[in-house]
This record gives sequence, structure tokens and C-alpha cells, in this order.
Amino acid sequence: MSHLHPQLLADCHTLGNTAIGTLLLHRNAALPWLILVPDTEAIELHELELSRYHQVMSEVRALAAFLKIHYRADRINVATIGNRVPRLHIHIIARTTGDACWPETVWGHLKEQIDYSETDIEALRAALRAGNHLR
Amino acid sequence: MSHLHPQLLADCHTLGNTAIGTLLLHRNAALPWLILVPDTEAIELHELELSRYHQVMSEVRALAAFLKIHYRADRINVATIGNRVPRLHIHIIARTTGDACWPETVWGHLKEQIDYSETDIEALRAALRAGNHLR
Repeated sequence: MSHLHPQLLADCHTLGNTAIGTLLLHRNAALPWLILVPDTEAIELHELELSRYHQVMSEVRALAAFLKIHYRADRINVATIGNRVPRLHIHIIARTTGDACWPETVWGHLKEQIDYSETDIEALRAALRAGNHLR
Repeated sequence: MSHLHPQLLADCHTLGNTAIGTLLLHRNAALPWLILVPDTEAIELHELELSRYHQVMSEVRALAAFLKIHYRADRINVATIGNRVPRLHIHIIARTTGDACWPETVWGHLKEQIDYSETDIEALRAALRAGNHLR
């Protein structure tokens, strides 16, 4: 696992390694919120070399499909922002009508803080492994 | 040009057609904010067929690179949200340290409303055409 930005480590549980980087789970269990951190020195998504970009985006697509089914989500939000944390990372978030900040985005609108149990996290890891999303 | 969602038309100027859909410019000139609307019936980005998905994401990558250079942006924010507007659309936004809502995301944090002039819009169209981003 490559060296992660301290803010990402503070905000997230580590789920494990994927084919292209590290998969994190935002600590706020108010809604299912994955963060994919590609192994790269690039700061911006578009600065990835084209084949690497497609590899990363394929993984984002697979994780979005996983979240949609696993959590019976109404909508998947995918975003790369990086205004506060310069290390390239991609948010993949399962949204449901009436969730903690629906229909607002999560950034700056998610007040409620709920914690995951170790059991919750291990169950998610197992489901991700079963779908070949984690190595 | 395919039929666009009325909310997108209300929020945006139409810049023109790209290889995969329609390119819009958010009416709020507080910061440069493109919205790419792929020609598709899919609601979620990950529901696009894989080759189409890569085609769309290649265009997003090219537009992000364009914005970064054209506006000397510090950061590019790329996102597909769709919590309010079900028609698939991708935000590609040029952010600069100290801009109208830095470092917050634009959604729900952009209070200032500034209008583009017709000259501004035509100049942006010309630059996009010169870079082969518009057909």
C-alpha cells in the first residue's frame, strides 16, 4: 500500500488494495462512501497517462455498479475534487432518496456522524472480495 | 442535439455538440463550469456500455485538460451527481485558490451570481473549437 495523505487516513477506514490503488471507506456511516486512491504521483485525474486513466475509470465503474446493487442505491455520485487534499482520490458514494443529506451533495452538507462497527467493515470487505474488487 | 432536461437548459448556455453529446456552460460566471451531457438513455455513468463509457471519459479528460490550461486553474473538479436532475451529465469545473467558494465544492456553496456576456461565450466556443472539443 502506498503512502496515503494523513487527512485521508484520518477520515477513512482502509478496506484494502485494488488492482490500481487503495480502497478506503469514509468513517461516516451515515451513507456508504468509498474513496479510491490510485497509486500515482499525478494530482489531477486527467494527468494520468491514457491507458492508466482508463484502468482507473474502469475500476470506478465496477465499484459504482457494486455500490448500486449492494446498497440498493437510488443514485451513485462519483467525483474527484481535491480542493483540500491534493493527493488524487475519487469519491464513489451510494445515495438514497431521503438519506442523511439528500438531495444535497455530501461535501459540507453531511452533519450527522455515525460510526461503523468492525463487523460492518469486515462484511463490506468480504462482499468486495467476493466481487473481485479487492486483491 | 438531443432533447435536454429543462433544468439543464435553465441553468446553462449551450456551447455546442461534441463527439459524444452536448456541451453546456453553467450560467454562473463566478467560475468556469462546463457540463457534458452524453447522448444516452443511461441514467448512471457506470450503466454506459464499456466502450461508450471510455469514449465519454476520454472526452471528460480532454475537457479537463483544456480547462486547466485555458483558465490557468489550480484544480479541476469532475463529478456526476444527478440527485436533482436525472438526465446523465458530468460537471467539469475549473477551480482557483480564492475563487467564489474555494475550497468548498460548488454545489450549494456558490452564492455569487455573475452573468457571461455573449462575447465571453463566443470566445470560449472559439477556443473549444480550436482544440477540437466541439464539432
